[in-house]
Amino acid sequence: MGEQRKSLGEAYGETAYPLIGHTRRNVEVLLEAFRSADGSQMGDTYGKGAIIEEFQTRMAEVLGKESAVFFPSGTMAQQIALRIWCDDADLKRVAYHPLCHLEIHEEDGLKELHHIEPILLGDQERLITLEDVQRLDRDIACLLLELPQREIGGQLPDYAELEAISAYCRSQGIKLHLDGARLFEITPYYQKTAAEICALFDSVYVSFYKGIGGIAGAILAGGTDFTAKSKVWKRRHGGDLVSLYPYIISSDYYYAERIGSMGRYYEEAKELAAMFGQCRGVKTKPAVPVSNMFHVHFEMDKEQLEPILIDVYRATGVGLVAYLNEAGEDQCYSEVNVGERYGKTPKESIHEAFRMLNEKLQEAAGI
Amino acid sequence: MGEQRKSLGEAYGETAYPLIGHTRRNVEVLLEAFRSADGSQMGDTYGKGAIIEEFQTRMAEVLGKESAVFFPSGTMAQQIALRIWCDDADLKRVAYHPLCHLEIHEEDGLKELHHIEPILLGDQERLITLEDVQRLDRDIACLLLELPQREIGGQLPDYAELEAISAYCRSQGIKLHLDGARLFEITPYYQKTAAEICALFDSVYVSFYKGIGGIAGAILAGGTDFTAKSKVWKRRHGGDLVSLYPYIISSDYYYAERIGSMGRYYEEAKELAAMFGQCRGVKTKPAVPVSNMFHVHFEMDKEQLEPILIDVYRATGVGLVAYLNEAGEDQCYSEVNVGERYGKTPKESIHEAFRMLNEKLQEAAGI
Repeated sequence: MGEQRKSLGEAYGETAYPLIGHTRRNVEVLLEAFRSADGSQMGDTYGKGAIIEEFQTRMAEVLGKESAVFFPSGTMAQQIALRIWCDDADLKRVAYHPLCHLEIHEEDGLKELHHIEPILLGDQERLITLEDVQRLDRDIACLLLELPQREIGGQLPDYAELEAISAYCRSQGIKLHLDGARLFEITPYYQKTAAEICALFDSVYVSFYKGIGGIAGAILAGGTDFTAKSKVWKRRHGGDLVSLYPYIISSDYYYAERIGSMGRYYEEAKELAAMFGQCRGVKTKPAVPVSNMFHVHFEMDKEQLEPILIDVYRATGVGLVAYLNEAGEDQCYSEVNVGERYGKTPKESIHEAFRMLNEKLQEAAGI
Repeated sequence: MGEQRKSLGEAYGETAYPLIGHTRRNVEVLLEAFRSADGSQMGDTYGKGAIIEEFQTRMAEVLGKESAVFFPSGTMAQQIALRIWCDDADLKRVAYHPLCHLEIHEEDGLKELHHIEPILLGDQERLITLEDVQRLDRDIACLLLELPQREIGGQLPDYAELEAISAYCRSQGIKLHLDGARLFEITPYYQKTAAEICALFDSVYVSFYKGIGGIAGAILAGGTDFTAKSKVWKRRHGGDLVSLYPYIISSDYYYAERIGSMGRYYEEAKELAAMFGQCRGVKTKPAVPVSNMFHVHFEMDKEQLEPILIDVYRATGVGLVAYLNEAGEDQCYSEVNVGERYGKTPKESIHEAFRMLNEKLQEAAGI
């Protein structure tokens, strides 16, 4: 199985046109960002210096918050955000989605380091609703919402529901934190600016290596009291590095390069999802994407599907997905996000790949 | 006072020959390290990939340990090391020097995040001795030793005492952790390899932006069980970044550039300390350096000394210290570390600067 999986990844890596994301995550990502950098510019030093402070100020403006702090990772930024709200409320309990990043990808840092108890709100198959929040039977200091909800394909609530959740939390004295790892990617669907969306939240984290495609790094934004506290916790976590400028300069560079393309990525994601959806036994979640990402589910065993995909990749030069995860009996899925690559791939090659994929899936189903 | 201080730093920054360290900490430090980098080389991904694994393997060999893990910061690496030893011993107590980095520079992360109680061992004016360790009246899971002890000028115990402390800790089941932020810098004095020194310790942290002069980053090394646990905690801390290669490539580059110069930096530090020590009312700590660093203490008020230094800098083009810290009445001090700059400065300029400094100090003292 390990070998099968490796060979799908290898076949994907060898295609002329891998469709996912922006580029290979190689050292060129850094070299490109620094090609026009000024060597005489001073680096940041323990969170201070023009290079970090100017970026933080600009991002605070973009997000419509008083202040912003650059972090090496979202994992660090978000645990700290929840810790601050818990300390402020003197209540070590928060609520978030069952498939929240903090719950499934962080080795329980929130519990092990901060001793915060999370309530898993709603159901792992769907979004958190206003009703879920209203039905909470225990006090919480903070509710974390992830927009879009990545682990269910990148789904979004209606904006009106989001506003209602925000209003309800405010009325109850519950702080609302935005896991906005992919915040910029949802602005086209909502037809709102990042700042408009963030206005519904007390604090927000955004990532610079998702839709922006930087190397690493995150911004945590909120009121000045909140961000001042976050800097103390950043040092405690070991995130107040002597210099973060390799991530800041690359974040800044790719933000400028790609922030204007979020609408295009979103339109292209819808186009690509429709092509997947027209294949036999293939569905996307959501059926129509609301950002640049979606999940693609195949009604077929991973072991059976991999050689089919490899054949398609080799015949057409188009890489459709980089890996497959098992999802119950005779089911598997992958995550797709659209960046620079999709638009640079000849449409006829993409169509040819999907025509061939569909043919092979029909064949395999005995149609 | 703020303005005075700023002007000393400015005057230092404007000299043709600032003597401290390697270079200005500007973006050129990154550009130089990446000038020969291969853009097609894949970056690391969440701690995996050749670029991080190969560096970790090489550093494990250098340090003579089974395994090594690259961390974004020493703050993160060391808290985690102590946490692992405390968990293993089921005892949340450690001991370290009163001026340990964890005690004075980390906003109490060890206490706030890990709830570990530190015993401050010995006296803040001197090194920890074997007797201090033997006199401990409470159990500890781990003793942290910092070599050299930076906050007292970079002092070192005799190697025999170090061996005795190590043997004692082993006999008592106390884990011994090395804060080796400046480990490479002490190998010339001890006339030992890094691995020989590390053999006395159960775990070790080394930094890549001190004597090595990289951008940021640290290695934590020890047994495979220890480092496996450290990776889990690294993720919890938010330090398992999607990509750390900007720090790894620069650490690797500057390690290769400078590891062979540690002996020279040490010899030059002794030379420079002697020149300070010959000035009126100036002493270094240690009197004779045992690494590339020392502290220089002035028997003069900071406010009075700054204009004197500024005059010397402007007249000779040599920057002796970058800042001054107050240290009680009519006393101030600064930290000096020798890197690439000292050796590239014309000796006659250095001598001229010290001649002028001494003259002005004598004048000020009415001699």
